[in-house]
Amino acid sequence: MGFWGIEVKPGKPYPYHADNIQGKLHVTHATLGIGSSNEKTILQCSSGHKSPIFLCSLLPNKIESCPLNLEFGDDDLVAFSVIGPQSIHLSGYFVADDGDDLRD
Amino acid sequence: MGFWGIEVKPGKPYPYHADNIQGKLHVTHATLGIGSSNEKTILQCSSGHKSPIFLCSLLPNKIESCPLNLEFGDDDLVAFSVIGPQSIHLSGYFVADDGDDLRD
Amino acid sequence: MGFWGIEVKPGKPYPYHADNIQGKLHVTHATLGIGSSNEKTILQCSSGHKSPIFLCSLLPNKIESCPLNLEFGDDDLVAFSVIGPQSIHLSGYFVADDGDDLRD
Amino acid sequence: MGFWGIEVKPGKPYPYHADNIQGKLHVTHATLGIGSSNEKTILQCSSGHKSPIFLCSLLPNKIESCPLNLEFGDDDLVAFSVIGPQSIHLSGYFVADDGDDLRD
Amino acid sequence: MGFWGIEVKPGKPYPYHADNIQGKLHVTHATLGIGSSNEKTILQCSSGHKSPIFLCSLLPNKIESCPLNLEFGDDDLVAFSVIGPQSIHLSGYFVADDGDDLRD
Repeated sequence: MGFWGIEVKPGKPYPYHADNIQGKLHVTHATLGIGSSNEKTILQCSSGHKSPIFLCSLLPNKIESCPLNLEFGDDDLVAFSVIGPQSIHLSGYFVADDGDDLRD
Repeated sequence: MGFWGIEVKPGKPYPYHADNIQGKLHVTHATLGIGSSNEKTILQCSSGHKSPIFLCSLLPNKIESCPLNLEFGDDDLVAFSVIGPQSIHLSGYFVADDGDDLRD
Repeated sequence: MGFWGIEVKPGKPYPYHADNIQGKLHVTHATLGIGSSNEKTILQCSSGHKSPIFLCSLLPNKIESCPLNLEFGDDDLVAFSVIGPQSIHLSGYFVADDGDDLRD
Repeated sequence: MGFWGIEVKPGKPYPYHADNIQGKLHVTHATLGIGSSNEKTILQCSSGHKSPIFLCSLLPNKIESCPLNLEFGDDDLVAFSVIGPQSIHLSGYFVADDGDDLRD
Repeated sequence: MGFWGIEVKPGKPYPYHADNIQGKLHVTHATLGIGSSNEKTILQCSSGHKSPIFLCSLLPNKIESCPLNLEFGDDDLVAFSVIGPQSIHLSGYFVADDGDDLRD
C-alpha cells in the first residue's frame, strides 16, 4: 500500500501503466494546481482508441477540487490529460495484490 | 478490471446491458460535456417500465460534475439519458467476476 | 443486484421495507425533481418512534443533488419524506444476500 | 444492520459509546437543522483528552449538507458537538459484528 | 478501530508514520480551521523525494470542507502540510490489522 499522486500538466498527457507491479490503483481526488487563470480546466481519461472521457471540470475559486472514485488494474493502459490552462493534481493510493506495499 | 466511460448525448438514450461479460460495473462520476448553454442538464436512468429516476443535475460553471455510486450486475438492463442541452460524461470501472480484466 | 430508484413527493412519505427479499439496499444519491420553486427541499428519514433525521437539503440551481451513503437491511423499516415544495429522486442499488439479483 | 441518526444541538455535546452492542457505526452525512441564522455552524468530534477535530462546516443556503465517512467500533468513546447557532443532523448506519441487526 | 484526527497548521508540516502499530489509516475529510482570512488554503501531501501533491483547496465561506479518500499502511511515510493562512483539520479512522482497536 502506498500514497499515490501525480500532477497532470497542460499539453502533457500522463500515461498510466502498472508494468511490473501487481495491484490496484485507486484514484480518489482531483485538485487544481496553482495558476492565475479564471478559466475551466477539464480532466479527461483516454483508453485505447475510444474518445476521451471527461472525469471532472474544475473552476478557480468555485470548484477547486473534486472527489473521484476510479480503480485501475494491472492491465489497464490509460492516459490522463487536461483541457485548459491549469494543471490538475490527482491523488489516491495503491494496493498491491498480496497486501504488501510497493517496496517489497 | 478496466476503466469504463461513456458520453450520454441529448436525444440518444444509452442502454447498458452486460451481455456476455460476467461482472460488475461501478459508475462513479458524471461530468458535463462541452457546450455553450447555461441551462441545467439532468441525467436519468430508466429500468423496466418504471418512471425514469434522476441521477443528478448539472449546471454550467456552477455544478460541473458530481460523484455517483451505482453498481450494475450481469442481469441489469437500464438506459441512461439526459434532459437538457448538453451531453454528460459518465465514468467508472468494471470488475469481472473472477477478478480478471475484460480482455481475458 | 439491481438498480434502485424512487421519487419522494411532497406530502407522500415513502416507506421502505424489504419484506420478502433478503439483501441490502444502498441509497447513494438524492436529486431534486422538476419544479419552478426557488425554495429549499429537505429529505428526511423516519425510523420507529424517533424524530425524523434530515438526510440532506437541496436548493434549486445551487445544490441540485447530493451524494448519500446509507445501507438498509432486511429488518429495517423506515420512511423517507420531504419538507418543501419539490420532489426528491433517490437512487442506489440492491444486493441480494446470495449475490443473485432480484429476479432469481 | 440499521439506520442511525442523531441531531446534535448547540450547547449539547452528544456522546457516542457502543456500550453493549458489538458492531460498527458508519457516520456518512451531516445536514443543517432548521433555523433562521445565516452564520456558519461547525461540527466537531472530541476523543479522549485531545483537542476537538472539526468534521465539517455548514453554511445556510450555501453548504447545507456534507458527506462524511467515519467508522466507530465497540471501544470508541467520542462526543460530537457543534460550534454555531444551528443544530446538525448526522446520519449513517450500524452493522452488528455477526451481521445481525440491532434487535437480535 | 478508532477515530483519527489532526490539525495541520501553517508552517508546521505534519508527518505521518505508523511506527509500531500494524494497520491502515483512512483519511476521509478535510475542514478549514478557524480564521479571519478570505484566502485559499491548500492541503498537500509529500512522500519521499517527489514534489508535494495537492489534496484539496479550501476557501472560507465557499468551500469550507471536502471529502477525501486516502489510505495509508504500515510503511507509508508521508507529511501533510498547508499552503495558505489557515489550518486544516483532517479526520478519518484507523483499522488495526487484526481487527482489534488501538488500545489492545
